[in-house]
Amino acid sequence: MLESPPVLTIAGSDSSGGAGIQADLKTFTVHRCYGASVTTALTAQNTAGVQAVFGVPPDFVKQQMNSVLDDIDIKAIKTGMLFDTENTKAVAQTLRGLFDAKGHVPFICDPVCVSTSGHALLHPDALDVLIDELFPISDLITPNKAEAELLLKQRNLPSRIANLQDMIDAARQLRSLGPQAVLLKGGHCVVSLGDLENVSSDEAHVVRDDLLDENSNILRIHGRNEQHPDSLVVDVLCESDSHITIFARTRIQSTSTHGTGCTLSAALVCQLARGTSLSEAVRLATAYTHNGIETAIPIGSGFGPLNHIHSITPRLVSPRTKTNPYPLTSSLIRSSRVIWKEYVQHEFVVLLGKGTLPKENFLHFIKQDYLYLKYYARAYALLAAKSHAYAPISAAIDVVLSIVQESSMHMGYCAEWGITEDELINTPESPTLTAYGAFLIDTGMQGDSMKLVVALAACLLGYGEVGLWLKEEARAPNSWVQWEGNPYLKWMEDYSGDVYQKAVKAGLETLESRAAADAPSQIRFADWQYVWERCTQLEKGFWDMAMNLD
Amino acid sequence: MLESPPVLTIAGSDSSGGAGIQADLKTFTVHRCYGASVTTALTAQNTAGVQAVFGVPPDFVKQQMNSVLDDIDIKAIKTGMLFDTENTKAVAQTLRGLFDAKGHVPFICDPVCVSTSGHALLHPDALDVLIDELFPISDLITPNKAEAELLLKQRNLPSRIANLQDMIDAARQLRSLGPQAVLLKGGHCVVSLGDLENVSSDEAHVVRDDLLDENSNILRIHGRNEQHPDSLVVDVLCESDSHITIFARTRIQSTSTHGTGCTLSAALVCQLARGTSLSEAVRLATAYTHNGIETAIPIGSGFGPLNHIHSITPRLVSPRTKTNPYPLTSSLIRSSRVIWKEYVQHEFVVLLGKGTLPKENFLHFIKQDYLYLKYYARAYALLAAKSHAYAPISAAIDVVLSIVQESSMHMGYCAEWGITEDELINTPESPTLTAYGAFLIDTGMQGDSMKLVVALAACLLGYGEVGLWLKEEARAPNSWVQWEGNPYLKWMEDYSGDVYQKAVKAGLETLESRAAADAPSQIRFADWQYVWERCTQLEKGFWDMAMNLD
Repeated sequence: MLESPPVLTIAGSDSSGGAGIQADLKTFTVHRCYGASVTTALTAQNTAGVQAVFGVPPDFVKQQMNSVLDDIDIKAIKTGMLFDTENTKAVAQTLRGLFDAKGHVPFICDPVCVSTSGHALLHPDALDVLIDELFPISDLITPNKAEAELLLKQRNLPSRIANLQDMIDAARQLRSLGPQAVLLKGGHCVVSLGDLENVSSDEAHVVRDDLLDENSNILRIHGRNEQHPDSLVVDVLCESDSHITIFARTRIQSTSTHGTGCTLSAALVCQLARGTSLSEAVRLATAYTHNGIETAIPIGSGFGPLNHIHSITPRLVSPRTKTNPYPLTSSLIRSSRVIWKEYVQHEFVVLLGKGTLPKENFLHFIKQDYLYLKYYARAYALLAAKSHAYAPISAAIDVVLSIVQESSMHMGYCAEWGITEDELINTPESPTLTAYGAFLIDTGMQGDSMKLVVALAACLLGYGEVGLWLKEEARAPNSWVQWEGNPYLKWMEDYSGDVYQKAVKAGLETLESRAAADAPSQIRFADWQYVWERCTQLEKGFWDMAMNLD
Repeated sequence: MLESPPVLTIAGSDSSGGAGIQADLKTFTVHRCYGASVTTALTAQNTAGVQAVFGVPPDFVKQQMNSVLDDIDIKAIKTGMLFDTENTKAVAQTLRGLFDAKGHVPFICDPVCVSTSGHALLHPDALDVLIDELFPISDLITPNKAEAELLLKQRNLPSRIANLQDMIDAARQLRSLGPQAVLLKGGHCVVSLGDLENVSSDEAHVVRDDLLDENSNILRIHGRNEQHPDSLVVDVLCESDSHITIFARTRIQSTSTHGTGCTLSAALVCQLARGTSLSEAVRLATAYTHNGIETAIPIGSGFGPLNHIHSITPRLVSPRTKTNPYPLTSSLIRSSRVIWKEYVQHEFVVLLGKGTLPKENFLHFIKQDYLYLKYYARAYALLAAKSHAYAPISAAIDVVLSIVQESSMHMGYCAEWGITEDELINTPESPTLTAYGAFLIDTGMQGDSMKLVVALAACLLGYGEVGLWLKEEARAPNSWVQWEGNPYLKWMEDYSGDVYQKAVKAGLETLESRAAADAPSQIRFADWQYVWERCTQLEKGFWDMAMNLD
């Protein structure tokens, strides 16, 4: 499965951006497809109408097609407004050449003849070319009522479409003109729920798309707007004479319908490029278009464009890349830049690096740190309890075990400084420490496991940063950091050493892989930033406490 | 602040979709701007080069501009490839007319002269028109090195740009030609970290965009790829002679650079349309473009397009609309359709509606339900404990209190059926009930509050659905539901009544408003579906238990 399959539209350009290749490119983009476009005609138009049309010469249409098709491995193609006979021929000829040479790719012909505002967009002479040369190579054609009637009339077939049964009959007739399948769009036909219920299940399968299913009384009764069962929009898909599917949904009263047809066929192309079945593609593409109309914000004075962007949200954490493998962590550090610096370059750290930190401050710190690590171990145990797979359970418990081990080292360490085990265990908790420790536990109780991972990271990563910073600084000639002979050498070695830094790297990987897989919404991201900044502040407070001997 | 400000590009069309109006429209779309486009020239091109160019007549360029500008309230404009002197004049004249008539809107002139592949895209004679007529009305021009040199040479100004200082000087010189500001793009200049450090802070402010800040040793040391400090890309923004900003970032080795310039100026237009300051707009737009190059998937045989869609993710729950006010709940019910029906139309419910449910089954149910409600009350209390604002705390506690009240009604109810308080309290828990109750508590402990809200909804909404269904069915002539005289009438009245249904509606609102504000990622959405379906199954199991008297 390609992450972003290339697709092609061959159509007219709508300067106002709501229809034509503009609607297609917008639709392709939000469907995560790569869009290329061949322009058959330029229009000067807006929501009020088409003011002028400028046809592109057929040779230049071909030249554009060849440039695209020679170079890019296009996975699906649609045609829209083809303008005139010559351009329709040029397109058909080039497509047939492509399919002969490289094999068939899904191809949708949207037989655009008339704009929403009533402007003719295809020269009448071109209809026969459309039918004779494009329909036979089409996997799907997508006429609306007016276009269907025009096409049927052109071939002297019964062409009046007044009700649902007419639509079904017309779809069958249109399919007899050559395409593999027909989607007859019903935006201009009024159909009721009763009409729908009259269709026998032998004749057609009905997909009640946004209509309420059975067992949905709560949604109907508590709906803010009653649905109008007497005014549905139905689209009829004919895949063979005996394979008819009807897609029914609520009709929306809206003037934001400019470009609806273009958008629908563009969304269909994206689905077919990904290998979606035709019927599911129609369901998804009609739902996308319907939501686009319903969520549209008025633009312009006439029939405004639909909203193409309702189906996407911004990605707040950049993707991981070679030059930025840790985008979440970078972003957390940046957003808390000032307090982060006050933490990792704290006076306590500077004096420790110089070797001039008074012993009593260090001892006060190390005793409180011993008590803090109990909370920290419990928080990791809580993380294990909140995990739903063996790997994260095991990873969290490994950390608990290494903290337990670190605590006994702490004890040995303290013994060197003349602190007994009893004194260490019975040290009263500083309120600063209680605030931090209890905040970790509370965060873990309150949110999901990722929120706890973020909370735990400020300590893990910050001490890693302090260790690396002191070690880097110590390397400079005449450094202010005293490495050899520093009474706190072991502390500096521990946090800059391989064992601790391996844990730092693992922590970075956990943070980043989870954020990449589970992209946060604005609310969640803000929540992570809040938790990170609080913990950074609490870390700074911890060293303030050590300096002030609180 | 407009949710989707309309913006306009006036540029050439690139059939291959990577540059020109295609790149602009893609960039506009992912930036949630509404894009309109006026085409000045068509190109037949691909990633290997430009095969042919077809100029649009100047009158038709004007006509397109007028159609757009007469109808749509455009918030910012960019120009790209203008093709020749006449089209450049036509664009300048129309823009000046617009600004005179309706006031100035932010306008960026990207002086496109040569394509990435080396093809001339602007007739040399047009350079003077560009400088004389467009630069004076430009808020920003965005030349690359080659374009800057060409423009400076045209006016006999020193034009050689070989290093960072040359770039700064050239940006100042270009600004003297008329535009409000100049962004000189440095993609084709090699600059080192040393060069950057040599720039005095008096001369320019440096924004080290993706370069690591101080206090980021952990990111540098543990980065998967070492950054190369000797090969940076810098862009120089000159807002006045004394107001220079340098944007520095890591250079990426990539051939996916087709359309980079178009994309950058399009992203800038989106920022300016939203009122972002110029300097912040440049930072955001260069970051977007940089990530687009770095995350590009190779397309075509030559200089491939960048990735325009890295900054968006799919929205998995549709927006709330009039015809679909409860998109999350609809989607949960649909995805669990079969089991949901087995739950809300359970044999137990049907027999209860008919009034033929054996008393012993009902009593077994009602006793277990009494015990279940304890878990349910505790789960809501847990929800309160996990909430971080008074409103959700109060809402959850209200539910706890009504459950407590309901339980005493349960007791009175049971008394009517001859069950004593002692018997009720001492009923042993069925494993089915323990599974469900403990699942709720576990889900609440394990995830965030929204996950618990989803878990609690299956019971709340399901009983609401059962109540409404029975009531609706009872209304039909000769209904199978026996309402009056049904021994379980009170039960049916309770769940179909206003008090309970008010809670159902409040539950729907909580679910939907939270999902709308806090759009779930794929992982979270799947998690909600899982929890919903599990609870639906456990509900069905509860009635199975009642029927089997387990």
